[in-house]
Amino acid sequence: MHVKSRYSFHDDYSEGAHPNVIEALSRTNMSQQSGYGEDEYCDAARRAIRDMIGAAEATIYFTPGGTGANLVSIASHLRPHEAVISAESGHIVGKEGGAIEAIGHKVLTGPSVDGKLTPETVQSIFQGSSEFSYQPKARMVFVSNATEIGTVYTKRELMAVAAKCKELNLLLCLDGARIGAALASASIPASEDGMTLTDIYNLTDVFWIGGTKNGALLGEAVVIKDPAFAKDFPYHLKQRGQFLAKGRILGIQFKTLMQDDLFFRLARHANEVAAEMSIFLARLGYKLWAATESNQVFVTFPPALVQELLDDFDFFIWHHLPDGNLVARLVASWATDPLEAKRLCQVVEQWTTKHQGLAQLRFT
Amino acid sequence: MHVKSRYSFHDDYSEGAHPNVIEALSRTNMSQQSGYGEDEYCDAARRAIRDMIGAAEATIYFTPGGTGANLVSIASHLRPHEAVISAESGHIVGKEGGAIEAIGHKVLTGPSVDGKLTPETVQSIFQGSSEFSYQPKARMVFVSNATEIGTVYTKRELMAVAAKCKELNLLLCLDGARIGAALASASIPASEDGMTLTDIYNLTDVFWIGGTKNGALLGEAVVIKDPAFAKDFPYHLKQRGQFLAKGRILGIQFKTLMQDDLFFRLARHANEVAAEMSIFLARLGYKLWAATESNQVFVTFPPALVQELLDDFDFFIWHHLPDGNLVARLVASWATDPLEAKRLCQVVEQWTTKHQGLAQLRFT
Amino acid sequence: MHVKSRYSFHDDYSEGAHPNVIEALSRTNMSQQSGYGEDEYCDAARRAIRDMIGAAEATIYFTPGGTGANLVSIASHLRPHEAVISAESGHIVGKEGGAIEAIGHKVLTGPSVDGKLTPETVQSIFQGSSEFSYQPKARMVFVSNATEIGTVYTKRELMAVAAKCKELNLLLCLDGARIGAALASASIPASEDGMTLTDIYNLTDVFWIGGTKNGALLGEAVVIKDPAFAKDFPYHLKQRGQFLAKGRILGIQFKTLMQDDLFFRLARHANEVAAEMSIFLARLGYKLWAATESNQVFVTFPPALVQELLDDFDFFIWHHLPDGNLVARLVASWATDPLEAKRLCQVVEQWTTKHQGLAQLRFT
Amino acid sequence: MHVKSRYSFHDDYSEGAHPNVIEALSRTNMSQQSGYGEDEYCDAARRAIRDMIGAAEATIYFTPGGTGANLVSIASHLRPHEAVISAESGHIVGKEGGAIEAIGHKVLTGPSVDGKLTPETVQSIFQGSSEFSYQPKARMVFVSNATEIGTVYTKRELMAVAAKCKELNLLLCLDGARIGAALASASIPASEDGMTLTDIYNLTDVFWIGGTKNGALLGEAVVIKDPAFAKDFPYHLKQRGQFLAKGRILGIQFKTLMQDDLFFRLARHANEVAAEMSIFLARLGYKLWAATESNQVFVTFPPALVQELLDDFDFFIWHHLPDGNLVARLVASWATDPLEAKRLCQVVEQWTTKHQGLAQLRFT
Repeated sequence: MHVKSRYSFHDDYSEGAHPNVIEALSRTNMSQQSGYGEDEYCDAARRAIRDMIGAAEATIYFTPGGTGANLVSIASHLRPHEAVISAESGHIVGKEGGAIEAIGHKVLTGPSVDGKLTPETVQSIFQGSSEFSYQPKARMVFVSNATEIGTVYTKRELMAVAAKCKELNLLLCLDGARIGAALASASIPASEDGMTLTDIYNLTDVFWIGGTKNGALLGEAVVIKDPAFAKDFPYHLKQRGQFLAKGRILGIQFKTLMQDDLFFRLARHANEVAAEMSIFLARLGYKLWAATESNQVFVTFPPALVQELLDDFDFFIWHHLPDGNLVARLVASWATDPLEAKRLCQVVEQWTTKHQGLAQLRFT
Repeated sequence: MHVKSRYSFHDDYSEGAHPNVIEALSRTNMSQQSGYGEDEYCDAARRAIRDMIGAAEATIYFTPGGTGANLVSIASHLRPHEAVISAESGHIVGKEGGAIEAIGHKVLTGPSVDGKLTPETVQSIFQGSSEFSYQPKARMVFVSNATEIGTVYTKRELMAVAAKCKELNLLLCLDGARIGAALASASIPASEDGMTLTDIYNLTDVFWIGGTKNGALLGEAVVIKDPAFAKDFPYHLKQRGQFLAKGRILGIQFKTLMQDDLFFRLARHANEVAAEMSIFLARLGYKLWAATESNQVFVTFPPALVQELLDDFDFFIWHHLPDGNLVARLVASWATDPLEAKRLCQVVEQWTTKHQGLAQLRFT
Repeated sequence: MHVKSRYSFHDDYSEGAHPNVIEALSRTNMSQQSGYGEDEYCDAARRAIRDMIGAAEATIYFTPGGTGANLVSIASHLRPHEAVISAESGHIVGKEGGAIEAIGHKVLTGPSVDGKLTPETVQSIFQGSSEFSYQPKARMVFVSNATEIGTVYTKRELMAVAAKCKELNLLLCLDGARIGAALASASIPASEDGMTLTDIYNLTDVFWIGGTKNGALLGEAVVIKDPAFAKDFPYHLKQRGQFLAKGRILGIQFKTLMQDDLFFRLARHANEVAAEMSIFLARLGYKLWAATESNQVFVTFPPALVQELLDDFDFFIWHHLPDGNLVARLVASWATDPLEAKRLCQVVEQWTTKHQGLAQLRFT
Repeated sequence: MHVKSRYSFHDDYSEGAHPNVIEALSRTNMSQQSGYGEDEYCDAARRAIRDMIGAAEATIYFTPGGTGANLVSIASHLRPHEAVISAESGHIVGKEGGAIEAIGHKVLTGPSVDGKLTPETVQSIFQGSSEFSYQPKARMVFVSNATEIGTVYTKRELMAVAAKCKELNLLLCLDGARIGAALASASIPASEDGMTLTDIYNLTDVFWIGGTKNGALLGEAVVIKDPAFAKDFPYHLKQRGQFLAKGRILGIQFKTLMQDDLFFRLARHANEVAAEMSIFLARLGYKLWAATESNQVFVTFPPALVQELLDDFDFFIWHHLPDGNLVARLVASWATDPLEAKRLCQVVEQWTTKHQGLAQLRFT
């Protein structure tokens, strides 16, 4: 078996799927099933998700990936002249190749706070694009949870955005590529201000549960609330090339992930490994560029340290700071080996001791 | 394990993937790989396909499914005012939910001969939409091989269409959802008028190799000839939601299918089972609605026989004939059990003997 | 002033506007008005049209041309996956450069009867594209009155199409580029089976009144019934580049055309001139390729006669018949000089006498 | 004749057309012409424009309005995955109802300097959207001259932007809705750093000359440089509903405007009236929110003064300043009566004397 020379914290889709998922695909492989999501595994997965949400009426469809989940969710809920409100840092703004514009909709943007959209920003973007017919008509708000920088919406925060949407007659769409990590976030005790899938369902009009980044080979589960929009969803899926003939492989994966809380157990593992790295690196004096609330660590390193780390590890340079330092993104996933995380921390620690002076210099 | 009460000849995507494919997914599952098709398995699959084509310069990308392969191939090769020529029976006309129109292009149609497009039809459609600027400008010809009704282009036929395209400055796009079955067709001895992937590559501007219907869980391999169009293909994939984060799973599947001629061995199996059914049913006096040249049998049955068959088997009613008879589509795949095919034939034989009179009545 | 060497029956937009329209533009030229259709002339035009329709609640907007009127009417009433049903001969099929596909919608076509769509055709197209999600979902029916070949829907015919639309939950859109000629048609006594703008409004969901081809420099008036679709119409107009800053020029033209029945007086003139030509040419033994029910004459001429006519007159060769004869389209408009029509008839008569033999030969 | 109770400085499209234009429309009204821009007036207008540009090879087409000119220029020059770079304040960003997104392209934005795009901004936007295929591919730069706030590009400035485009392989598209005012700007002596249509043609890939806002009833002239893009332009016009049947009315207007320098004489008049207002109001101590370089004055007024002015005059409130003051936009056009401009200035002067104290208070 091939092993990468350097251990990767580059993203949460470097490995395949959780062994249970592979086993389920293998076990069910030869059974004959109807195509396009009308198989027994998709039915079972839908039941399992509805149970977790606690909404027997929820409509659920599966897409191969996240861009497709977003574009079909938006295409099916908007009319051609309607626009989407998003944070400038939103995934659909600069990370999906103009997929939303390609289906005809403008994305109206404003600044985010800790990667999140606030009711105030929604209000001001709405006011800037609602008075005249030469302004694209704001009709939907798009948020991701966890956000692009790994922060997590508290229940209070999402309730406030949802309330603003109701007030302004805006639909709320939630991108759940990392919803597992978000809902499993330890930074927000569920008891207090945390959320469950039920909260997400109640507060949004359409959202999706990300499988690709949390244990599946591929696949996202889109949950649609309004029957008027749910009715024709398969037409939209087909028209946009998001309807797999062997939908069974999406069904069996979600069925498996929903069993015995596997989906959230995997998310907690990822969050825990990220938290350990985050705490350790912070203790060494390295500034966190964003709060570590889910499975991603954004930490500020001097270039020399990054050079050293890149000998043994792979990760993404998220940002170049004016002061010359770099923001490294360290992503932990369900598959990340805690010992490799520890090893990375040790390399940083050794380097730091060795280059104390330099470090001091750079961080005062 | 679940087994369908009735054995299905409904389509060629009722089962999962060939065991070798599942094994390969399982074996490589935990290796860390780069995302979006930049992994070692996609590289290996590309090399294998280029070797089979015999074109080291060919550009190859993978999509999750066929609609995506078609819409990205067309979107990347056309300008907004350019239209696609297809047979009325073409897959993109009535089987993809308006996916081509959704990306802005008109599909100009004309009658097909045995499910195929002829140079004459291309010529007349072109003439009908090229003189004035109020006519969508014909710029591409779309064909499928095998066709929607399972017929196969001979080398002479495709060369004639390709020559007409050159003459009229039209691009040629070939949908290869069932290209395995087409190239493995026994009805056309390769020695004489059959084709290879090399022929397909030489005669077209863009085509794709269908994995979904020939042994893969999902995935099609798009082969692009002109570097000018190939260059930005990933942008198109991303923009249309056709770019899997774990591209590795497409790579490993194609790598496996291309090993030891597995891809064509599977296709030959499907064709052979279809041929056996076709020959047997024809001998019993049932009219074939289309020639059985690949893995699909289109046969004319009286309704009563269809009723009887549906107790034990699942298949698609393709067409209702004016005379009251039905056209049943019996699809064989890499996974079809020859004994089940034989069993279906026997049920037909028994019914026929029993209802000789009726049959006579209906078929004279 | 420039005068074309040859008198033109090529189309109904060869001249500018009726003198009253030019006078009104000139008279109101220096008054200051609000932009984008919020001026007093558009208001007055809306009132005048509502009065003619007898619907105080009707919403009316103006577009510069017919393609824009069609594409905005369709874009504003459909969701992305919904398709339009039209006759193969329909204007949006082959005469608008793929404008409907460019906004994402498939046009589903079927044969026409005398250029008209029948309930039977609507039914069969609908059945062919409604059962499965891989079929574009038929949601609207598109008709033109007068049709592309100048025929006119009787009240009974349009009621039948409208009833079928209601039955199948389809919207009905009527292209009125030549609605003046259609409603002024003498071939259908209004008393019996003719129609008025009121009938058109009652039977359709959206339709438009063509100014360009009936006395205006440019401009069409779109009449929208459902307030839900009417509400955001200006956004669609702006987004598609159909919203003139100086909307006043559309308002003043329609205000003028609606005064003292000018609009229909111009249409009657065009119809009368066409009728005279049609009757005369038929009496000479020339076959009418389509019934002359409005302002267009489609007549079958031998090539030699066409050659002769082209020395003095300009017209469009609509069709080449298998027998070698040509279908000439002679269009009369509000501006057509009856003496020129008479002159054309005389040239035909002289040629016919001179070439009796040949004519006989060709027409038996 | 109707006269608005209040004199309007609201925009430059409040009146109809220059009398010469009306006269020309009237004079040529009854001549028979070919449709869709193939008439003698469009030919003459093209010749006149090519002469002014000094480029016999330039391709020219006419559109009814500015949004259409922009969307067809962009649609014809870009492939679906390519994006447009514009200043945040650019017209296509928030003033055209999402027209560019409706044809599938993302608009990438950055801050402007005095309403203008700089090479530095182009560079940074480009860098932010060029490295990965998940980033819409920047391929065109969009500028307006004059800008949205009436400022004018110097030759040096536009040359710098054009050079950056060449460097980054970006096309340059210039929106000339107010190109007359820009090129007639007195703030930049042509002798030194001013520009002519020849400069604009040489520095851009496609640009358009605005008629609507400078003496025409409607119409813009799009000038295309690259024959490869020019070739199919009519198809794009037709497909987007931008192709007037009576193209003659666009031709005759531009022919008239280009005669005896009328186009620029009208622009100079507008600029002069704006300059007079600007100088007078500045002298009274009112801050100019933007430099008055063409026909628009953006001046800061206290709300009470705005109230007073609105009794006699109509104008647009462009912006609400944090300090409570308002930015009024006063637009002068070819039709603006200098005496009305003087009258407005007097009202401001009187109010200012009367409320000296208050004014002082507000403006220190």
